[in-house]
Amino acid sequence: MTGKNISHSYKTTEGDLVQLVGLHHGFHLFFLKHGNSIQTHRGVIQHDNLIGKEWGSMVKSHSGNPFFLLQPSLSNILESTKRSTQIMYPKDIGFILITMGIVPGVRVIEAGSGSGAFTSALASMVREKGRVYSYEILEEKSKLAEENTRKLGLDSYVEFKVRDIQLGFDEKNVDAIFLDLPNPFDFLHQVHNSLKPGGYFGTILPSTNQVIKTIVELKRNSFGFIDVCETMLRYYQVDPDRFRPTDRMVAHTGYLVFARKVIKDDLYIDQSLDSEE
Amino acid sequence: MTGKNISHSYKTTEGDLVQLVGLHHGFHLFFLKHGNSIQTHRGVIQHDNLIGKEWGSMVKSHSGNPFFLLQPSLSNILESTKRSTQIMYPKDIGFILITMGIVPGVRVIEAGSGSGAFTSALASMVREKGRVYSYEILEEKSKLAEENTRKLGLDSYVEFKVRDIQLGFDEKNVDAIFLDLPNPFDFLHQVHNSLKPGGYFGTILPSTNQVIKTIVELKRNSFGFIDVCETMLRYYQVDPDRFRPTDRMVAHTGYLVFARKVIKDDLYIDQSLDSEE
Amino acid sequence: MTGKNISHSYKTTEGDLVQLVGLHHGFHLFFLKHGNSIQTHRGVIQHDNLIGKEWGSMVKSHSGNPFFLLQPSLSNILESTKRSTQIMYPKDIGFILITMGIVPGVRVIEAGSGSGAFTSALASMVREKGRVYSYEILEEKSKLAEENTRKLGLDSYVEFKVRDIQLGFDEKNVDAIFLDLPNPFDFLHQVHNSLKPGGYFGTILPSTNQVIKTIVELKRNSFGFIDVCETMLRYYQVDPDRFRPTDRMVAHTGYLVFARKVIKDDLYIDQSLDSEE
Amino acid sequence: MTGKNISHSYKTTEGDLVQLVGLHHGFHLFFLKHGNSIQTHRGVIQHDNLIGKEWGSMVKSHSGNPFFLLQPSLSNILESTKRSTQIMYPKDIGFILITMGIVPGVRVIEAGSGSGAFTSALASMVREKGRVYSYEILEEKSKLAEENTRKLGLDSYVEFKVRDIQLGFDEKNVDAIFLDLPNPFDFLHQVHNSLKPGGYFGTILPSTNQVIKTIVELKRNSFGFIDVCETMLRYYQVDPDRFRPTDRMVAHTGYLVFARKVIKDDLYIDQSLDSEE
Repeated sequence: MTGKNISHSYKTTEGDLVQLVGLHHGFHLFFLKHGNSIQTHRGVIQHDNLIGKEWGSMVKSHSGNPFFLLQPSLSNILESTKRSTQIMYPKDIGFILITMGIVPGVRVIEAGSGSGAFTSALASMVREKGRVYSYEILEEKSKLAEENTRKLGLDSYVEFKVRDIQLGFDEKNVDAIFLDLPNPFDFLHQVHNSLKPGGYFGTILPSTNQVIKTIVELKRNSFGFIDVCETMLRYYQVDPDRFRPTDRMVAHTGYLVFARKVIKDDLYIDQSLDSEE
Repeated sequence: MTGKNISHSYKTTEGDLVQLVGLHHGFHLFFLKHGNSIQTHRGVIQHDNLIGKEWGSMVKSHSGNPFFLLQPSLSNILESTKRSTQIMYPKDIGFILITMGIVPGVRVIEAGSGSGAFTSALASMVREKGRVYSYEILEEKSKLAEENTRKLGLDSYVEFKVRDIQLGFDEKNVDAIFLDLPNPFDFLHQVHNSLKPGGYFGTILPSTNQVIKTIVELKRNSFGFIDVCETMLRYYQVDPDRFRPTDRMVAHTGYLVFARKVIKDDLYIDQSLDSEE
Repeated sequence: MTGKNISHSYKTTEGDLVQLVGLHHGFHLFFLKHGNSIQTHRGVIQHDNLIGKEWGSMVKSHSGNPFFLLQPSLSNILESTKRSTQIMYPKDIGFILITMGIVPGVRVIEAGSGSGAFTSALASMVREKGRVYSYEILEEKSKLAEENTRKLGLDSYVEFKVRDIQLGFDEKNVDAIFLDLPNPFDFLHQVHNSLKPGGYFGTILPSTNQVIKTIVELKRNSFGFIDVCETMLRYYQVDPDRFRPTDRMVAHTGYLVFARKVIKDDLYIDQSLDSEE
Repeated sequence: MTGKNISHSYKTTEGDLVQLVGLHHGFHLFFLKHGNSIQTHRGVIQHDNLIGKEWGSMVKSHSGNPFFLLQPSLSNILESTKRSTQIMYPKDIGFILITMGIVPGVRVIEAGSGSGAFTSALASMVREKGRVYSYEILEEKSKLAEENTRKLGLDSYVEFKVRDIQLGFDEKNVDAIFLDLPNPFDFLHQVHNSLKPGGYFGTILPSTNQVIKTIVELKRNSFGFIDVCETMLRYYQVDPDRFRPTDRMVAHTGYLVFARKVIKDDLYIDQSLDSEE
């Protein structure tokens, strides 16, 4: 998955983003370049041995260990940057994108930029007809997010801005705003100002204390259709003779909070607007 | 969300897909057309009273009940066709799309077409540079799926085919194949033939018996990186003074099974290819 | 399950607590008495037709509908009084009993008495060598709990007290105290006074706001080994050809909070006493 | 918790089972004996420094590290033998005891004996008026279970038998039978023979394949009221300012299967006897 192309050819070419997967030990994600080599725990592989190979084929390292040459999915890419973003897992991102209406053509604001992983997920969806505006208070982090997004060829769909969002967003009437910050409740006035009527607000928060504050402020800023939920993902052991869940799982990444901007009569500013189950 | 446009204007126009949401009772999804009217449990509303209104604004039915005029998200659209598709919930669809690498430009096969809900989700992602091939054995169901996809303006990205997939798929080298059928294990040879190396297979199955059979057949057809999981979604009551989960939840929609087509040496056709946690 | 006896005979006798279970529609719980009859949705049954029958046998109502004559478990008894106690489900009660060390011989305080269901569970465990002290502020509720406990033949192990626990408990040095009240955080000083060193405190609370307050007060009253958890119970459809979870489940009953009374040096009154995972 | 006594005195005496808990690193479980000493990662402690101390008090090791002197609960004891029993966690045991009607006075069969942890749980409930019959095919394991049960002072309530249960159980008309074996489906005829009508059968199984086989055999042996479920336990971080679940959890211990022996007319041997939700 890159911005420029989905490779429909059978074979890899220089510049392709590849996922190299060993039999037992995770994967490597990198761009193919003549002359380069990749170091793994199971030996070294020359990029020249990978370029021109059929996608999905097995290659071996200098020490004889087998690897598969694959095209990464968005989920694989997110996983590979997971360490720095803490709580944004694919299970949450897929649900966020679909719940907040993120499809090609959408204009969406994000803050903060983080490592650029969620930025890339947004960019890969909105593409040329849409736009991602990614706000970050620290210049250093903004640069990193931009670089990571550029590596995936998705930077042309994103505008990175170094800014304290306390000062508000430049854009108005956007389709959706996602805040990946510990204190989204402090910026809901700014969110309301830049969101189009009916537009989606979303955030992800680790603790119930943060969720409680966010609900209070969403109501105070007259958002409607507030929803709070959490996603859980349970893996199974792939053994047809002893089919059962894995022993341990991720118990918590974060609570998801969604809301929509509505325009209402003064008469109706009450809590009956909360979404019902 | 429609195929033709994401409305960036403040106001609705004829032909827009709108979501009309009452204070307590679900929502209505329809296209605006001069002269039409919409019947609700809380009174009648003329489309002419909705056309030209600001998105997100509140309108009233002839009997005085308030409604909000919103643009639906993909999730809303899926929900509105949920009844006929049984187990494809937004929580699963978001995760499937992100795990199987469904982004703009992708070529993906789906069988069966069902009510067209998942077809629409795929189409809304792949767009003009990609393609959805939707196979269905019953002509009647194929027609319904096509009609539902056309209503959302997404039909131009999809080819509907009435076909018993026992006979195989016309396309070769596609990026991903999703089978929404009770017996995917019967068609994995056909899937393997049409998938590009490294391409993604996916299915959703209600019972463990089906999952067990599918794992056996995936291994027999030398797929790699098999993953089985289930997503769970837990909603919370939106009350900042008594924040807690809702009393009841959906306990099960289906088990998700994913795998990738790999090309391997004969030497390595063993179960060590299963994905590890 | 009653206080007086576990029937080891094959057959029912007058005075036995029986569970009468129809094929599809829940169960009835009552004591056998010559001359009485039981009304069900599926017809009437005379007690005299049940007395002297083998346990587990099938009997028919006057209208020919079949029922099974069973001895109820503690879990069945709790279910039958569930309506009035709201959040105390068997899944929670079993875990509470085992976590708080409730075995024969234990002295335990409970407040409030509720419907007597949890009182009965405690009494059925502690028996003649132990003691349950059940506090309740409302006389009417205390009477009801006592009556329900007497019906199960467990009242001789319980002392019911009508009291505002703000005034403290009469007993000192008890093994465990469980508060089934919305505001346990208001009574932790009283709990500390009556608990033996190392003794167990427990409570069940529906909302996170209540849990947060309780944690604060437990720390302030120098309790140690604080644990917060929730139990979830997922049922499966009993179909060997389509084995899978039921569609819906109870998502939340309450958060369980446990702690132990410890005696510490002033030097060690810090949060490092919290239990670690 | 021991068989002989629940200590109602403030202070420890020789022979007491104590739980010594450090600030951060699990706990030690042992019997107090004059002259003995206990080695910990944080220094050595003489038993003589523990005997006569108040329960709940803090003591220090020779190297100055603090520990608390507590009475263990059944849950603590089970945890301490957990390593050898694999899947019997307190969350499951509490639910099993309450569902299968295990209270003082009950006669219950268990196979196999395992490490004696579940045996001890059963014994601590049934006491002098009840009886645990614990079957085990390996003499060595039976001895170990007996020894562990004796350590807790609970051995007088248990009869250990070295036996292949293929040959059946000596007892008839028992209240409950629990099989902690990988193939309970092979012994349901024997279970049926020894269970009283209406009595409870229970088992815990890691894989769905085993559950499916067990359901088939339960139906074939005309058990009724079959229930399959799993318990999940989710811990929370005990931080009132950032209250939220722990990051990871146990995802799976085992599926619980319960059923009851019923006596039915030939006419009614059909699947309509399955318990309904």
